Amino acid sequence: MGSESDCRSEGVILGVDGGTTSTICVCMPLLPFSDHRQLPEPLPILGRAVAGCSNYNSVGENAARGTLEQVMAEALSKAGLNHSAVRAVCLGVSGVNHPTDQEMILNWIRDIFPGHVKILVENDAVAALASGTMGKLHGCVLIAGTGCIAYGFREDGREARAAGAGPVLGDWGSGYGIAAQGLTAVVRAHDGRGPKTMLTNCVLKSLNLSSPDEIIGWTYADSSWARIAALVPVVVSCAEAGDQIANDILNNAVQELATSVKAVVHRLQLAGEDENGSFPVVVVGGVLEANKSWDIGKEVINSILKTYPGASPIRPKVEPAIGAALFAWNTLVKEAKENGH
Amino acid sequence: MGSESDCRSEGVILGVDGGTTSTICVCMPLLPFSDHRQLPEPLPILGRAVAGCSNYNSVGENAARGTLEQVMAEALSKAGLNHSAVRAVCLGVSGVNHPTDQEMILNWIRDIFPGHVKILVENDAVAALASGTMGKLHGCVLIAGTGCIAYGFREDGREARAAGAGPVLGDWGSGYGIAAQGLTAVVRAHDGRGPKTMLTNCVLKSLNLSSPDEIIGWTYADSSWARIAALVPVVVSCAEAGDQIANDILNNAVQELATSVKAVVHRLQLAGEDENGSFPVVVVGGVLEANKSWDIGKEVINSILKTYPGASPIRPKVEPAIGAALFAWNTLVKEAKENGH
Repeated sequence: MGSESDCRSEGVILGVDGGTTSTICVCMPLLPFSDHRQLPEPLPILGRAVAGCSNYNSVGENAARGTLEQVMAEALSKAGLNHSAVRAVCLGVSGVNHPTDQEMILNWIRDIFPGHVKILVENDAVAALASGTMGKLHGCVLIAGTGCIAYGFREDGREARAAGAGPVLGDWGSGYGIAAQGLTAVVRAHDGRGPKTMLTNCVLKSLNLSSPDEIIGWTYADSSWARIAALVPVVVSCAEAGDQIANDILNNAVQELATSVKAVVHRLQLAGEDENGSFPVVVVGGVLEANKSWDIGKEVINSILKTYPGASPIRPKVEPAIGAALFAWNTLVKEAKENGH
Repeated sequence: MGSESDCRSEGVILGVDGGTTSTICVCMPLLPFSDHRQLPEPLPILGRAVAGCSNYNSVGENAARGTLEQVMAEALSKAGLNHSAVRAVCLGVSGVNHPTDQEMILNWIRDIFPGHVKILVENDAVAALASGTMGKLHGCVLIAGTGCIAYGFREDGREARAAGAGPVLGDWGSGYGIAAQGLTAVVRAHDGRGPKTMLTNCVLKSLNLSSPDEIIGWTYADSSWARIAALVPVVVSCAEAGDQIANDILNNAVQELATSVKAVVHRLQLAGEDENGSFPVVVVGGVLEANKSWDIGKEVINSILKTYPGASPIRPKVEPAIGAALFAWNTLVKEAKENGH
């Protein structure tokens, strides 16, 4: 408690991970401005709060703004602090793609804090990358959950993305893409266009349906992408049991995900001109978690390493909200160095 | 006029093509019960009416029922007749997939006509097939517009279908499927995952967009499948201009569509046990129309003929509503023969 109290007197940092499902805010003490390799473990968290969706494309501007204000106030309140203790805030919010998005959210947040507070508004991919690099905005992050996207950043400020175009535009490495291919394989086997597959019985059992004919009705009864993506574990377990079709689907997803990362690395020259340089690749999201013997994340990393042997794969140990806070901290450190402190 | 008046005294037949975009009803005189190869040309049409959507999955039961009642009343009125002149009705309605669907619509129509009127309720694929076979329910019909489906029928009553599972479940030969692959190719070329393609400039010009970045927003701004499918001519013109990616997309669509027909023909043994027997293949829908030098329909037929040399490809000369009327007529002829007349 003693050291935390000391930190607290220096001020705190807020990190926000604003997603379409939920929004998380953590309050951390301002860490000493030393090298990020010397960060304390575990990281000190003074307060943490969870709220609903803050993607304004999804819930509208007023609701998104209210959610962001509320989740930050709650995290501060849990830390026993008020807004005047804050030195910096980083919000990594999904749906932020253009400078106009950044500016809009910046204006919302600007009003809440004193003028000297550093406020950073970024895409949620920044928070995910920083959760693996402990705050440094350098390298490539691959996110594969219901959707998928590869996002790369150079320290000189250049950035690039690949995939992230949603189900209509061919995100075949996403959870949605894998599951939709699994459902398609069942329909094709049923109507004679494709080979028989274990997926038929496994998918029907999982959805509590009695015939593949019912899959069409089930699919279009609800337009939620997450509902389709929830079938990924069925495809993985069929692949683990040796089903060829399920293995083909996962191998295809691995290639798609690896291609997204490679496209970003190539465009940003993250591996240097000789393509052998070192750079972090942070992998996050349900599709890439190492919880199965058929490990999609591991296969993606292997494919990336074949092209870029200098890639350093990282599975983050902290959540994206902490990544956002560490990115804010890292920005303060950089600015202090530039100012000669 | 004289012969039409004679026919009219024998009663008339209504044929209805009920689609998701529009519903068409034609009123035809009862043709003589002779061989269908001796049908008059052009076929005599006493009245024709057009109304809105009659797919109850799309507009609800009450609206669908109202549309069907209205379009039939209007076609009769244009022929200067009332419901008592009707001998038989065939409704080919999209969305009819199960006996329960048929029964529901049958109950709607039963009430309008006298008890002796023959009423047939079928999927709209039946009307499309009959428009090519001049009323005979035998062979395979391939429909490829915004969606695609292959539907096969044997004279002994057995039937089978393939594809028709919609955009999520891999109808890659549909107009939607072709256009979505075109859009995907533009996104992939832009973010470095795929080769450059002529599609980029052609699609952007067609959509009045200035950058591939805007395609994601355009795609998800509206969930209409037909809006995406409207890009098929762009893919076809790029393929005709020699673009490799556009050619790959169309060749893939051809294989998908041909595979659907072959699956149906195989399951129903339409070509007999030696697979050399003769059977009709009726091809309909915007994707299969022979209006381009890159003729998707012709390529599909060539692929089918390689597997089933006895297939007789037919591009219908009459509309599906007339097909429905001819199917009703054909049913009356069969029943008369069975009753020894």
